[in-house]
Amino acid sequence: MANPSLLILPGDGIGPEVMDEVKRVISWFGDKRNLAFDVSEDLVGGAAYDAHGVPLHDDTMAKAQEVDAVLLGAVGGPKYDNLDFSVKPERGLLRLRKEMDLFANLRPAQCFDALADFSSLKRDIVAGLDIMIVRELTSGVYFGEPRGIHLEDNMRVGINTQRYTEAEIERAARAAFDLARKRSNKVCSMEKANVMESGILWRDVVTEVHQADYADVELSHMYADNGAMQLVRAPKQFDVILTDNLFGDILSDCAAMLTGSLGMLPSASLGLPMANGRPKAMYEPVHGSAPDITGQGKANPIACILSFAMALRYSFDEGAEADRLEAAIEKVLADGARTADLMGPEGGTPLSTTQMGDVILSAL
Amino acid sequence: MANPSLLILPGDGIGPEVMDEVKRVISWFGDKRNLAFDVSEDLVGGAAYDAHGVPLHDDTMAKAQEVDAVLLGAVGGPKYDNLDFSVKPERGLLRLRKEMDLFANLRPAQCFDALADFSSLKRDIVAGLDIMIVRELTSGVYFGEPRGIHLEDNMRVGINTQRYTEAEIERAARAAFDLARKRSNKVCSMEKANVMESGILWRDVVTEVHQADYADVELSHMYADNGAMQLVRAPKQFDVILTDNLFGDILSDCAAMLTGSLGMLPSASLGLPMANGRPKAMYEPVHGSAPDITGQGKANPIACILSFAMALRYSFDEGAEADRLEAAIEKVLADGARTADLMGPEGGTPLSTTQMGDVILSAL
Ligand SMILES: CC(C)[C@H](C(=O)O)[C@@H](O)C(=O)O
Ligand SMILES: CC(C)[C@H](C(=O)O)[C@@H](O)C(=O)O
Repeated sequence: MANPSLLILPGDGIGPEVMDEVKRVISWFGDKRNLAFDVSEDLVGGAAYDAHGVPLHDDTMAKAQEVDAVLLGAVGGPKYDNLDFSVKPERGLLRLRKEMDLFANLRPAQCFDALADFSSLKRDIVAGLDIMIVRELTSGVYFGEPRGIHLEDNMRVGINTQRYTEAEIERAARAAFDLARKRSNKVCSMEKANVMESGILWRDVVTEVHQADYADVELSHMYADNGAMQLVRAPKQFDVILTDNLFGDILSDCAAMLTGSLGMLPSASLGLPMANGRPKAMYEPVHGSAPDITGQGKANPIACILSFAMALRYSFDEGAEADRLEAAIEKVLADGARTADLMGPEGGTPLSTTQMGDVILSAL
Repeated sequence: MANPSLLILPGDGIGPEVMDEVKRVISWFGDKRNLAFDVSEDLVGGAAYDAHGVPLHDDTMAKAQEVDAVLLGAVGGPKYDNLDFSVKPERGLLRLRKEMDLFANLRPAQCFDALADFSSLKRDIVAGLDIMIVRELTSGVYFGEPRGIHLEDNMRVGINTQRYTEAEIERAARAAFDLARKRSNKVCSMEKANVMESGILWRDVVTEVHQADYADVELSHMYADNGAMQLVRAPKQFDVILTDNLFGDILSDCAAMLTGSLGMLPSASLGLPMANGRPKAMYEPVHGSAPDITGQGKANPIACILSFAMALRYSFDEGAEADRLEAAIEKVLADGARTADLMGPEGGTPLSTTQMGDVILSAL
């Protein structure tokens, strides 16, 4: 049987640097665990714009549709800030999400014990935190029409449309309930049903799906503004949080920051099953392209490596191998391995990106 | 000259309880500081629905348009959760905001020194925190058309429209820049210009207003998701935050929770100047109707009293009297006065709502 295929899109900024360490980890699994992948590589974001004048070439899009999983680094940078909206680096990422139909964005917010003191929150509020945010990723105000800026009586008007069909809400809800069953069996759904009709439909459909097929899962609803408050006040009350594209963008970043170590957080974006049974999938770290530290060997590769661990778990059904990789990372952290972003006030010499890769490979 | 007029709308839940203490404070200013107000009172939210079948009667709306300032308690409660969208308690509040054209919602997130330990964040991250969020309050996805739930090919579709004109953005921006000049002269504007065209227009107009009339104010822009992160990571980097209606709803609640004491936070919603030069204005605490503690005398009246202090400052140009009231509150807190929501793990007997009113009046 052919090896499973991976398309690597390192992207911009620190993307290529952290992806170099992921490539070494991938090779290790091929050499040592008999888990070989066919790896190809291509451009996305500003890097694709520089080469082709578009943030994602059609050929790259076609490749992404064919492989078993895409690994993405990061997109964007100040160099591209003044590009036209239609060719901004972000459009490459959004095109991948939309055309691969990756509707379920899984964003774990997990606080590593060895790093709990990095949080701006008190240790007891965040130690042991383990939330999974399921964000709808292919619809809502990110993609709704009509949209744009036009003139009305000589005045500019900016418009975007929040639009959800019941089918879109249903499949995101199912993803959340399925995940909850493998965790603490609790879903909290967040919207603004007190203000937005799209939020009323969201709440109704989530409730219907729950009653029909997931009555064993504990379901609650919360307005998104209260959700932001509760995340700050007492985040451990949550297990799985289900929310839409825009609220998910903001709430998942808020949740990510609670853990204190953005350089540690991976994500998975999953779509429908392909012919081989695997879901369409893209994996990427939650952090951005970090132009301020690009090219200095300072970036923390762990979020990107943990994204590959999510690929092992969700695309390749290799949960035990994912556990192995995550355990190796917990071990090096417990042993005190730290990149620059993880240095406390006590100081010390941080590991470079490559050195962090080295210690993780040794721990494996 | 006639006394300035106040319309008090206590609303639902703990609204009436906290408003009782505000009324005593108002009387004190009349008796002791020669600052008498003509006070009338009416219903809003569920209370109005119970009496009239609508969450805001037309007569109440007309009164609100005539007075110098409206003081609102809180709206909503479980009793009203299943009402039709069009008569929910929230619609009363939204109608007041929209018809009074209260476009600038000022939400201070201030951490009281005596209460810094109540925050879930570390003391040094929040002690001395003093942010002012300026949220656009009359437009955006809260009010944009088309909206609603309809059927397409037998499938329900929920729609809301995010819509901003340049005039709407401009007047909110001016409010933020004007405020910044009286503070630390720094505005950070938040949107999702990387994803939404309405965010691009927002950024463009804010930049234009800045260049034309406020070049002396320091202006920065941030994506709203990063804004949520930065609020959690290092909130003291901000002075004035300017944002739209929906982002403002979420980010201001997130910021409020950083301070650890929601029962302490007031807000002002300001519109255009009336014939007498005073702005249309409504003042309300940030906390909700708190059905869980309603009628038990446990509610903290400080947020509502501080909202009256904002009225003194922004509607009646009585900054020195507002300072006096705020100082009295800081003093009682420093002296250890605590309602139930402010009790630490060390315990003790909390003050009732009325007792907190008592000590504040004595301090005055
Ligand atoms: C880069 C940007 C388009 C993206 C988003 O808004 O979805 C990012 O913030 C994210 O959360 O993945
Ligand atoms: C009660 C609700 C309609 C309101 C809003 O969403 O604006 C509230 O959350 C607020 O922030 O004042």
